[in-house]
Amino acid sequence: MRLRNKPWVPDLIAANPDLIVTAATDKDLAGQWRDRFANPNLPIQLEIGSGKGQFIIGMAQKYPELNFIGMELQSSAIGMILQKQCELRLPNLQLFLGDGAALTEFFAPAEVANIYLNFSDPWPKTKHAKRRLTYASFLAQYQIVLAKNGQLKLKTDNSGLFEYSIMSLNQAGWLFDFLSVDLHQTERQAENVETEYEQKFAARGQVIYALDAMPPVTK
Amino acid sequence: MRLRNKPWVPDLIAANPDLIVTAATDKDLAGQWRDRFANPNLPIQLEIGSGKGQFIIGMAQKYPELNFIGMELQSSAIGMILQKQCELRLPNLQLFLGDGAALTEFFAPAEVANIYLNFSDPWPKTKHAKRRLTYASFLAQYQIVLAKNGQLKLKTDNSGLFEYSIMSLNQAGWLFDFLSVDLHQTERQAENVETEYEQKFAARGQVIYALDAMPPVTK
Repeated sequence: MRLRNKPWVPDLIAANPDLIVTAATDKDLAGQWRDRFANPNLPIQLEIGSGKGQFIIGMAQKYPELNFIGMELQSSAIGMILQKQCELRLPNLQLFLGDGAALTEFFAPAEVANIYLNFSDPWPKTKHAKRRLTYASFLAQYQIVLAKNGQLKLKTDNSGLFEYSIMSLNQAGWLFDFLSVDLHQTERQAENVETEYEQKFAARGQVIYALDAMPPVTK
Repeated sequence: MRLRNKPWVPDLIAANPDLIVTAATDKDLAGQWRDRFANPNLPIQLEIGSGKGQFIIGMAQKYPELNFIGMELQSSAIGMILQKQCELRLPNLQLFLGDGAALTEFFAPAEVANIYLNFSDPWPKTKHAKRRLTYASFLAQYQIVLAKNGQLKLKTDNSGLFEYSIMSLNQAGWLFDFLSVDLHQTERQAENVETEYEQKFAARGQVIYALDAMPPVTK
């Protein structure tokens, strides 16, 4: 999802250093995330690519016993999440303007309890496979920042990305804990927090694919 | 697929020992399969659960450079394949009335180049999971009878069996080489030999799931 440039975003970000950090200006983030939350003892849930934020805000509201970070590369998108968070001021939600490709720069080993990928860009052309958020180089970073028993939780409506992700995770030795080719028909749908995109496409009859996977146990 | 009992089948089987063997009467099959084919040097392809045989006959006709075994538990079903084979007399097709659960009794280690599972019974109830042809105990036998670089090739219209098979194969350390949530929309469809069931359900708009997987490399 590409949004029109929003010139007011940089000022809003600069005015709310308690709610949002950016990779460009905030250094030494790794290992420090827990201190940014009202309750530093709650396990951190990271969404990579939060878009307009319906999922991460919905999750933060639904699970006050967990801390959430909404990470997004586009300032126009994260600006919209920040606007909502300025009103809601959820104590268990932090926003992060940054690039998932450099995850291990911003997160310490085992700092994150779970990672969520929701309707990530499928990059359908083979020559762009390296940009997919389940490409081997991303998985290697997830493996580092995930805590013990942590999981990668993926949802997509894109069959190509789903198929690719299964193959890529399997090849890297990850273990599936859940897998569905039609999430909305499963028992899990009762507790599923939907993204804007998910609601729109599911309403058109598009199936939603989902999986949870755990990194290989290293010796 | 359960067929009505066909009382003529035992006699037809007994009359054609060059075309079909049965687990009940033919012993010492393991390691001897190649000698049953006109050309014993062609790699053996095994389908477990051949039903009425459209797939295995179609494959044997399409790929004369390969040997095929159609295995089926129901004598009524394999009787229908045998009727066709009595007319066709394909030199690269053998039939086998037997149970996939005892595969390693009937096949020697590395005797089979590839194993096909087409639209296998999904056994949807959790208490019947052990009967699914991708349950761990079956995978362990496939791993033994498959030759080096051999693959398990699965097609199904059943989402539950597909999801289960991915999880089960992943957990047993198998490596996916191909995976599709809509086989008939892939390039592979051009060469796909369809089963009777597959043609019927795909015509109704049902998607066909497919995967190829290789056993874990043992040390």
